[in-house]
Amino acid sequence: MPEVQPISNETWDLLKAPSTATLTTVLAKKGLWNTFLTGVKPLGPNSKMAGRAFTLRYIPAREDLDSSLEFDNATDPQRIAIEQVGPGDVLVIDARGDERGGTMGAILATRMHVRGAAGVVTDGAFRDSPVIAELEMPAYARSAHAATNKTIHHPCDLQLPIACAGVAVYPGDVLIGDEEGVVVIPPHLADEVAREAAAQEHREDFIIDKIRGGAPLVGTYPMDDATRAEYERTLKQ
Amino acid sequence: MPEVQPISNETWDLLKAPSTATLTTVLAKKGLWNTFLTGVKPLGPNSKMAGRAFTLRYIPAREDLDSSLEFDNATDPQRIAIEQVGPGDVLVIDARGDERGGTMGAILATRMHVRGAAGVVTDGAFRDSPVIAELEMPAYARSAHAATNKTIHHPCDLQLPIACAGVAVYPGDVLIGDEEGVVVIPPHLADEVAREAAAQEHREDFIIDKIRGGAPLVGTYPMDDATRAEYERTLKQ
Amino acid sequence: MPEVQPISNETWDLLKAPSTATLTTVLAKKGLWNTFLTGVKPLGPNSKMAGRAFTLRYIPAREDLDSSLEFDNATDPQRIAIEQVGPGDVLVIDARGDERGGTMGAILATRMHVRGAAGVVTDGAFRDSPVIAELEMPAYARSAHAATNKTIHHPCDLQLPIACAGVAVYPGDVLIGDEEGVVVIPPHLADEVAREAAAQEHREDFIIDKIRGGAPLVGTYPMDDATRAEYERTLKQ
Amino acid sequence: MPEVQPISNETWDLLKAPSTATLTTVLAKKGLWNTFLTGVKPLGPNSKMAGRAFTLRYIPAREDLDSSLEFDNATDPQRIAIEQVGPGDVLVIDARGDERGGTMGAILATRMHVRGAAGVVTDGAFRDSPVIAELEMPAYARSAHAATNKTIHHPCDLQLPIACAGVAVYPGDVLIGDEEGVVVIPPHLADEVAREAAAQEHREDFIIDKIRGGAPLVGTYPMDDATRAEYERTLKQ
Amino acid sequence: MPEVQPISNETWDLLKAPSTATLTTVLAKKGLWNTFLTGVKPLGPNSKMAGRAFTLRYIPAREDLDSSLEFDNATDPQRIAIEQVGPGDVLVIDARGDERGGTMGAILATRMHVRGAAGVVTDGAFRDSPVIAELEMPAYARSAHAATNKTIHHPCDLQLPIACAGVAVYPGDVLIGDEEGVVVIPPHLADEVAREAAAQEHREDFIIDKIRGGAPLVGTYPMDDATRAEYERTLKQ
Amino acid sequence: MPEVQPISNETWDLLKAPSTATLTTVLAKKGLWNTFLTGVKPLGPNSKMAGRAFTLRYIPAREDLDSSLEFDNATDPQRIAIEQVGPGDVLVIDARGDERGGTMGAILATRMHVRGAAGVVTDGAFRDSPVIAELEMPAYARSAHAATNKTIHHPCDLQLPIACAGVAVYPGDVLIGDEEGVVVIPPHLADEVAREAAAQEHREDFIIDKIRGGAPLVGTYPMDDATRAEYERTLKQ
Repeated sequence: MPEVQPISNETWDLLKAPSTATLTTVLAKKGLWNTFLTGVKPLGPNSKMAGRAFTLRYIPAREDLDSSLEFDNATDPQRIAIEQVGPGDVLVIDARGDERGGTMGAILATRMHVRGAAGVVTDGAFRDSPVIAELEMPAYARSAHAATNKTIHHPCDLQLPIACAGVAVYPGDVLIGDEEGVVVIPPHLADEVAREAAAQEHREDFIIDKIRGGAPLVGTYPMDDATRAEYERTLKQ
Repeated sequence: MPEVQPISNETWDLLKAPSTATLTTVLAKKGLWNTFLTGVKPLGPNSKMAGRAFTLRYIPAREDLDSSLEFDNATDPQRIAIEQVGPGDVLVIDARGDERGGTMGAILATRMHVRGAAGVVTDGAFRDSPVIAELEMPAYARSAHAATNKTIHHPCDLQLPIACAGVAVYPGDVLIGDEEGVVVIPPHLADEVAREAAAQEHREDFIIDKIRGGAPLVGTYPMDDATRAEYERTLKQ
Repeated sequence: MPEVQPISNETWDLLKAPSTATLTTVLAKKGLWNTFLTGVKPLGPNSKMAGRAFTLRYIPAREDLDSSLEFDNATDPQRIAIEQVGPGDVLVIDARGDERGGTMGAILATRMHVRGAAGVVTDGAFRDSPVIAELEMPAYARSAHAATNKTIHHPCDLQLPIACAGVAVYPGDVLIGDEEGVVVIPPHLADEVAREAAAQEHREDFIIDKIRGGAPLVGTYPMDDATRAEYERTLKQ
Repeated sequence: MPEVQPISNETWDLLKAPSTATLTTVLAKKGLWNTFLTGVKPLGPNSKMAGRAFTLRYIPAREDLDSSLEFDNATDPQRIAIEQVGPGDVLVIDARGDERGGTMGAILATRMHVRGAAGVVTDGAFRDSPVIAELEMPAYARSAHAATNKTIHHPCDLQLPIACAGVAVYPGDVLIGDEEGVVVIPPHLADEVAREAAAQEHREDFIIDKIRGGAPLVGTYPMDDATRAEYERTLKQ
Repeated sequence: MPEVQPISNETWDLLKAPSTATLTTVLAKKGLWNTFLTGVKPLGPNSKMAGRAFTLRYIPAREDLDSSLEFDNATDPQRIAIEQVGPGDVLVIDARGDERGGTMGAILATRMHVRGAAGVVTDGAFRDSPVIAELEMPAYARSAHAATNKTIHHPCDLQLPIACAGVAVYPGDVLIGDEEGVVVIPPHLADEVAREAAAQEHREDFIIDKIRGGAPLVGTYPMDDATRAEYERTLKQ
Repeated sequence: MPEVQPISNETWDLLKAPSTATLTTVLAKKGLWNTFLTGVKPLGPNSKMAGRAFTLRYIPAREDLDSSLEFDNATDPQRIAIEQVGPGDVLVIDARGDERGGTMGAILATRMHVRGAAGVVTDGAFRDSPVIAELEMPAYARSAHAATNKTIHHPCDLQLPIACAGVAVYPGDVLIGDEEGVVVIPPHLADEVAREAAAQEHREDFIIDKIRGGAPLVGTYPMDDATRAEYERTLKQ
């Protein structure tokens, strides 16, 4: 597991601009093909997210351990996680893709929001989803399910590498979310991904403007020499 | 199968306030863990529903029985059901989770609405879903599919216990729906569930206000003695 | 494979009015039971679509052929398809239902829109889905995924019969889309389907008005002799 | 629902010879395309089965009704069914395709075998499957699962039409099983299906002998006039 | 997580006799309903297994960490696990149910066998499955897949609580396997489960003998007073 | 698409020896990670297969084209394929993974066997599977289903690149099958894959012998210098 490295403000600024589609392409060009959480969608209108993974892992519930529905803030990894995440953190939950119960409700999500968390992501469901959808803090899930998490899930541990929606997420990974979903960026690649994504986004804005104006794909996408020269002239302006 | 019991107006009033998430928790505390219809969502903006289950069961279509696309109001259980449901009834359809055809269209849904039905729920799909979504009567389904129900489904019988979205639904069960989905409450538990859910909802409103104001989970959720005393003071006011 | 036949303007006009639910019923009455794309939904608010199938087939990617992320407009069937579709064409993509990668992004969809395409349909996912959703040209997919198409898909060939969402689509098939989804009509049936659907839609509008006014199903849906006579009087007016 | 009719001994004898593949083809020629239980396989080496459907329906368990693990032979529909099936009956269980628990164990299956039942079919799992596999009475299921049926299933009623593995099964339907699986034949078609299947099987034996001897498909399968004449000569011998 | 307790030889002897079906019922009577690994089957004829869980967790592979196909015995948790398991241990692998790659091959399984391991269980696939199937050491999996584990899986850590085939498995849990599959028993319940299972198995052997002899369910299963008295007489002999 | 190249006899001999697990690893080392057909298993005891892909593509059936159940050897691509395959060919069928109908029966499989075909592979089901399982020619499928192929499938074309069980298969690809399943090798890699696989298999036989003799993983797998020297000495003998 690569060491967790700090991300500069400049890189954060660059990472917030491009779409997850652009970031996924840049990562694929670096050989990382499986970085987008399949099937995980934003709950509400606030879907622009940037932060670092704080991981929480659930395993299946077992009746003698989980049926009390009592929650102990001192020992329950879910509760501990909520009170540890802070500004810039995205809580990422490995729920094994099991949507037969919620993985978090409105009170805990609100607490995270008050603590300044950058977002929350699960490959299962949220409960109280209409309330969570209205938080300013972005939230991503497969679906909504009203059942409390202990029906199906046992909060097991935190800050370990996890699986989320088929993608490996390591603590400290950079997570960017938009209306389309969430992409995972290994931190040691964040600087170069940020720069290349900004450049690609800029280039594609130029291209899509030309396409809207009637340019054909040939010569435009990818750019031939003439178009590239024209693009470079616009860069200088 | 427990006998169907009338629900008092007071209980109905209490049941309409809490979210399905709260009701599901109260039921779990009573040992009923599988009461929320997994994967069934409201079609349109009207999603607040309260009523009692009137069940309709479909089995797979067979070509010699179902390919005519003629419908006989006198013998077709679907048609009979539509003309039997009345105020306070929620038609619940067991479609085996099969989404490859509709289970009801706009004309029948409109008829139910005119008859005063409280809602309609299927673990399959609706057809004419844009029209149904605009009815004042809430409707819940897995998805939309334009095919007529006889393509895939044969209306078989009514008012028997059924499976809907993985949950047992008995005729007369209390169904509460909101933006998150639908919860099934056995009628013999309705009174106590209603009271406990109202109390829990009230308590959680108090808690979420404190969390919004910056209180940590410890001491607040669950409440410690000091917070509980404070909460009880607010109850007396 | 039946020969591709031109569709008259009058038929197009008739086909644009009815819902996909009505068209699916008319096709079922003719013995065609599997004509609606299961699980494929409109991306944005523009969902009224009418056009003819221009097919594009993907197979799984293979690393030595697809990992370069270079795109050649002269040889890539996806790129060739984009520059061949024109007014009245609906690009239909066979993505094997695999949602683990996009099948098209904003630049190509925009190009198709500029070329006058009537729509685009995939049984996989789109990337840049927020941008595509805002195009005037309707787009239908199972879901959104940010990964570039070559992660999962290899554009293989065009204008062959394909599978899309469990339905056979032949080049030239008539595709009609609305808020509910997409129906496939063999062109040799288009004229009669159009006429019968218009008649059925007209009849059902009459019926639903009566149902809204309180008429029971019996005598109204299906119509008995008295109602039919009343309906025929309205036709004459 | 067509009335249940007796099947003659001659028809039974004819029905026992052909494979389920042949019977499925004969039914398809009569317009019945969905008659084979998808995904249901024989448990053990005894897989030749012929009998009539005695149906049993399960719905999801509910904790207050099903968690006692006490079984009452007088009221439990599963127990009642076991003591009602007799010679020529095949117990067919609608388990909603849910394989997360057994639907029957060795003691009940043995009792059915002692009573002379012709077989047992479930679209869920059996428990004690190694013991059931060794019974002389054929048994078909999707899989094996050790959990008792009340974990997941509530025996609901018997002798109603059911869904089993995606196929409609009516009480009294003729069920034929072999190593490949189980086909459902409506009894009003049993005589003609039996005769045509016997004829088809005979014809295909002739064809496969020719194919083994080196004959090409053309002229052989389907037979041209010369081959048909040759076949008819063999019929006369 | 309950503390891991030693299991006495007497308990092991009792646990090896009953079927997983009997053990699952005994656990259900104690309120533990989800203890059998759904969909996990023995690979070969050696399927009688008894041991304690040694857990190994996989997460999805990431190309920059996993594509080398070099394996380091000093740091790879899979390799470390293999050299730590000993007599009485069952290696249980959390492969997220992903069958698109192997989770272990013949060389490592052979090494575990040589080290005296009691078995190996995965909720994914094995590679070299024909070789593993012939080992004396029992092995359980969902299926077989030839791809090396690093194609899909990243060995992450060991001896943590895991999910396997939908069931929670804690290090030290007692695992019993037979031809039907694998059941998980919390160690603090092992003694009483062992005793009750032995008693139940003995009782059911008596019952099934009576059923084979023609006794009806009523009076026999469950036993009435007369049968129970008869059974108790046999106990004394 | 790379050109189809002949495979030397020496390469064939080398390719027949190693397991599909070994071949899949060698391909992964060359950057091809997705070459094994997930979920496709041998039908019978004859599972050692080596040959080149002859592809056949099915799309969903449409009633007006496929319901006649008449088969025309002159125009039906399935029939044409059967009479074109010869010694060394493996017919590979793209059935979209749809197991709700057979993709081939005993007569056609027998004809292929008589023509000397090396095998047949489908990502759907076979019908007459007990007969096909007994052919000397190996056959691989997901499952068995008695329905004729035209119930679900329309034979569409042959010798195009296809998808089979999630893997791209190009005409002429080298297919190797064993008890575990089927691996696809691009022909331009066949020589080097063959040589490296033979070497790897030889090396792994040496390793597994040492492991059986009690050697630990460290120093043995992977080999350290001493073990490698010992291995090289055995090579010289």
